[in-house]
Amino acid sequence: MGNSEDKPSAASSRSAGEVVADEVRRSPALALIIFVPVVILLERILPDAHTLLFLVSVVAIVPLAALLSRATEAVAAKTGDAVGGLLNATLGNLTELVISLAALQAGQHLLVKASLAGAIVTNTLFMLGGAFFLGGLKHHIQEFNRVNARFQACLLFLATIAILVPSLISEVDQPPAPSVSQDLSLGLAVLLIVVYALGMLFSLRTHRELFASVGHADEDEKPWPLGLSIILLIGVTLLVAMVSEIFVSSVQVAAEHLGMTPAFVGFIVVALVGAAAEMTTAFSAARANRLDLSVGIALGSAAQIALFVAPVLVLVSYFVGPEPMTLQFWRGAVTMMIVATIAATLLSNGGRGAWYAGVMALALYAIFAFTLFVLPPANPT
Amino acid sequence: MGNSEDKPSAASSRSAGEVVADEVRRSPALALIIFVPVVILLERILPDAHTLLFLVSVVAIVPLAALLSRATEAVAAKTGDAVGGLLNATLGNLTELVISLAALQAGQHLLVKASLAGAIVTNTLFMLGGAFFLGGLKHHIQEFNRVNARFQACLLFLATIAILVPSLISEVDQPPAPSVSQDLSLGLAVLLIVVYALGMLFSLRTHRELFASVGHADEDEKPWPLGLSIILLIGVTLLVAMVSEIFVSSVQVAAEHLGMTPAFVGFIVVALVGAAAEMTTAFSAARANRLDLSVGIALGSAAQIALFVAPVLVLVSYFVGPEPMTLQFWRGAVTMMIVATIAATLLSNGGRGAWYAGVMALALYAIFAFTLFVLPPANPT
Amino acid sequence: MGNSEDKPSAASSRSAGEVVADEVRRSPALALIIFVPVVILLERILPDAHTLLFLVSVVAIVPLAALLSRATEAVAAKTGDAVGGLLNATLGNLTELVISLAALQAGQHLLVKASLAGAIVTNTLFMLGGAFFLGGLKHHIQEFNRVNARFQACLLFLATIAILVPSLISEVDQPPAPSVSQDLSLGLAVLLIVVYALGMLFSLRTHRELFASVGHADEDEKPWPLGLSIILLIGVTLLVAMVSEIFVSSVQVAAEHLGMTPAFVGFIVVALVGAAAEMTTAFSAARANRLDLSVGIALGSAAQIALFVAPVLVLVSYFVGPEPMTLQFWRGAVTMMIVATIAATLLSNGGRGAWYAGVMALALYAIFAFTLFVLPPANPT
Repeated sequence: MGNSEDKPSAASSRSAGEVVADEVRRSPALALIIFVPVVILLERILPDAHTLLFLVSVVAIVPLAALLSRATEAVAAKTGDAVGGLLNATLGNLTELVISLAALQAGQHLLVKASLAGAIVTNTLFMLGGAFFLGGLKHHIQEFNRVNARFQACLLFLATIAILVPSLISEVDQPPAPSVSQDLSLGLAVLLIVVYALGMLFSLRTHRELFASVGHADEDEKPWPLGLSIILLIGVTLLVAMVSEIFVSSVQVAAEHLGMTPAFVGFIVVALVGAAAEMTTAFSAARANRLDLSVGIALGSAAQIALFVAPVLVLVSYFVGPEPMTLQFWRGAVTMMIVATIAATLLSNGGRGAWYAGVMALALYAIFAFTLFVLPPANPT
Repeated sequence: MGNSEDKPSAASSRSAGEVVADEVRRSPALALIIFVPVVILLERILPDAHTLLFLVSVVAIVPLAALLSRATEAVAAKTGDAVGGLLNATLGNLTELVISLAALQAGQHLLVKASLAGAIVTNTLFMLGGAFFLGGLKHHIQEFNRVNARFQACLLFLATIAILVPSLISEVDQPPAPSVSQDLSLGLAVLLIVVYALGMLFSLRTHRELFASVGHADEDEKPWPLGLSIILLIGVTLLVAMVSEIFVSSVQVAAEHLGMTPAFVGFIVVALVGAAAEMTTAFSAARANRLDLSVGIALGSAAQIALFVAPVLVLVSYFVGPEPMTLQFWRGAVTMMIVATIAATLLSNGGRGAWYAGVMALALYAIFAFTLFVLPPANPT
Repeated sequence: MGNSEDKPSAASSRSAGEVVADEVRRSPALALIIFVPVVILLERILPDAHTLLFLVSVVAIVPLAALLSRATEAVAAKTGDAVGGLLNATLGNLTELVISLAALQAGQHLLVKASLAGAIVTNTLFMLGGAFFLGGLKHHIQEFNRVNARFQACLLFLATIAILVPSLISEVDQPPAPSVSQDLSLGLAVLLIVVYALGMLFSLRTHRELFASVGHADEDEKPWPLGLSIILLIGVTLLVAMVSEIFVSSVQVAAEHLGMTPAFVGFIVVALVGAAAEMTTAFSAARANRLDLSVGIALGSAAQIALFVAPVLVLVSYFVGPEPMTLQFWRGAVTMMIVATIAATLLSNGGRGAWYAGVMALALYAIFAFTLFVLPPANPT
């Protein structure tokens, strides 16, 4: 660890190619990046091979998400704590955001909503459960700072409820008129973004010590040069956008061929792909007995989806795509989000982790996935 | 503080006028009391100026509620701990009760139910959130006794669920026959009052030390003479009743003019007005870093609404007004009450307060208010 | 206590009659065992006296459940910790399981589901509430290990949600096709049993120290000989099966006569009868200021119903009875189970017990019972 940090000047003279090659050595999953040009070529040659395009694009997004996450961290590390924290907090779910934007442009609101709901459930059940399970296999009982975890779980609960209000309140006999539903969603989106901005003020400025441990995940990695990081950040974002577009245009036909509904694809596939990079960090932190960090990443990322990604998509939907998107989720999604949030609250409330707690959370995730596979939403918008 | 208590004899010779004048100096909001005679006169002169009557009556109730709260405390302070505690516990929501009785007499069950639901949500989100926010602006992190807070939150949760049972269980395809619904509400009302009586036995007799700090809010205030306190208590209650009647008779037409539904008026306006006095105490306690007291007032008052005010109104509705009232709330109200209670449980569970926790609770309250404004209950009974 | 354990050899030479006579002396309720032959005879003589058969069979099951519980413990004590723990964990709700099997065979799915839902609610509200109340009457404040309690409450919450997923998710406008619902229930049943098996691995093998105190309830009782215990275990199970069959065949007509619905009988009567033996243990532990044990029994038993008894009944329903049973509960049952679980979480979360907490839990139970009596499920399958 000391060694690698002794030579920042040498590091900063590395080229983009060397950096990527270096990263691939560190995390072999990055080798999947070869599928990025493959899928772009395939789309030109075989534009109607939807199932193939769907599968290859999913595989291609995984390494891009990892690179995006690393580039964001590298820029954040160079720009100082305040701006860096802001970047990390804003771009932490960039992959998710870019995929959702592509779906929004194609007017696939159900896919967007399913991926939002799925991201919250995946972060709270799969990521948290996986961290408890993998950490618990190595360590008998893992203690973590339950005061901070509880505070963050409380914020997550409020955030989740906030985006669910239109769905919860409007569950009346006759659904509200579309225009009312849109006004409500627009007003809420603005309010949520204000709350999110205040949350950044809170976590980055006034109470940063509460969130201190999060973000120092990989202390032993080589620093990237700033210019390169920014170029990578922009370049990889563009690549994610390109691959997402292929993904979105192929998903409907491909899902049908594979026997999956768009709701299932959004809820499970997009959510897992979008969170892949953070999951790696959360899982290795749990193995290293740093469950605080895992809990922080999982709860923080879920809160970000609810308070930032979802309302931004509502606002953007007024300019992109055929018609504005509301925040109304189908009932099953509402139930799953609330259950997942309460489960995360209980898991992080105890202050202790063990492998079986992880099994229970993962089982709940499996039950949700299985149910969604067997029983797609009847009236999902 | 010592000084004012050295001369109780001098204090007790003060007249009612002096006492009120003294109070007005201490809390300038009491000067609004001038609107009490104004609204009573206005109602004689302009009985059809509903919007004006509505606005002035709302303003007139605020100082009356504050005086009522002070008079109750003064009587309680003079009559010894047991009787005093009983008085405080029973009359703590007297304003709310008197307004609701006026609405009951006018047969406006929706207004009554909205103000009950609103009182629980206002106490748990607005009062608790405001206390966290205002306290947090002054103090970085506020620690409070989480064991007591958790105990009270647990009681509040059970109390809220108890009044919601008829609404929760009866959510079947075909709603129950009105007579069944009435039997159920009547039985529950009796049971809830028994539970409330046992709760007073618990908090005032067997386990009073758990609730000890609550009620010593303003130790530095001048004591009122007992006779005067009782006269004020009775007199102010009568004034609240008179103003409430004007308020209730004008609310429907006025709300329409102002673009508000009766549900919104009950949920937001009546609840805020009814809780104004307690809110002042809770907020200044939070500023003085006594978050225990704030949490106790907020949760205790909400539990009192659920366990005492609501069932008393059901029982009274058999003698007052056109037809008996049930405990069935519309679905949005049920959701908001449960969410508010869970949020209060989480907020008080942590044992730590900070300004952003308050922001989140206030944002949730704003979301509820906004939703209710945009989307009134469809079938609110 | 020492005395009785000094002479295991003497004890092992006791006959079954002596053992039963000894037990009856220790717990007079066992004298009710006289009703077992009575009900079997009655059924031959008066096969149409349904109300009488129903009442006598209920009374006869109580002592059998107590004996079954003692026999299981006796076998468990003799077979060593691992196998014994397994036996205890598997047969802890044997009475409930046998009654439900009889109901399943008669095709009374509503009775089965009501008794499953009722068992979870009874364990979490009635058993836990009763323990807090009875313990609290004797001890001012009872502290208990809240870390373990919280961990178990977390598992219970996840377990309860897991069996509710089909009911929660399928709450769409049009219910799913029966075949889909069956596939879903079958898949979930298998998953839940796997989770239950892992849970036994966790609590009996890898993390047994967390659950250590549970199971040493009656340290001062005379040990039973192993052979006798096994014979009693089998014999009493057969008797429970016989009486259960009489109970199930008489319940429908009898309930009508007594003005109760099958849902009420299953939810309240079967659940109370099935849990009678464990309740005795939990209540006396609370009186002895061992609230840890009471909480462990109540939460553990409820989790076992959700993770083991319910899925086993789904699997068995493919071989027994007219048609497979699903895990879809009616909405009121879903609400009551979730509320009961959250209440149990809150009660055990505090780490402190007092009599009023018990009153609140018992009041909630009374409210549920009363509601179910007045307002049976409209569309209960």
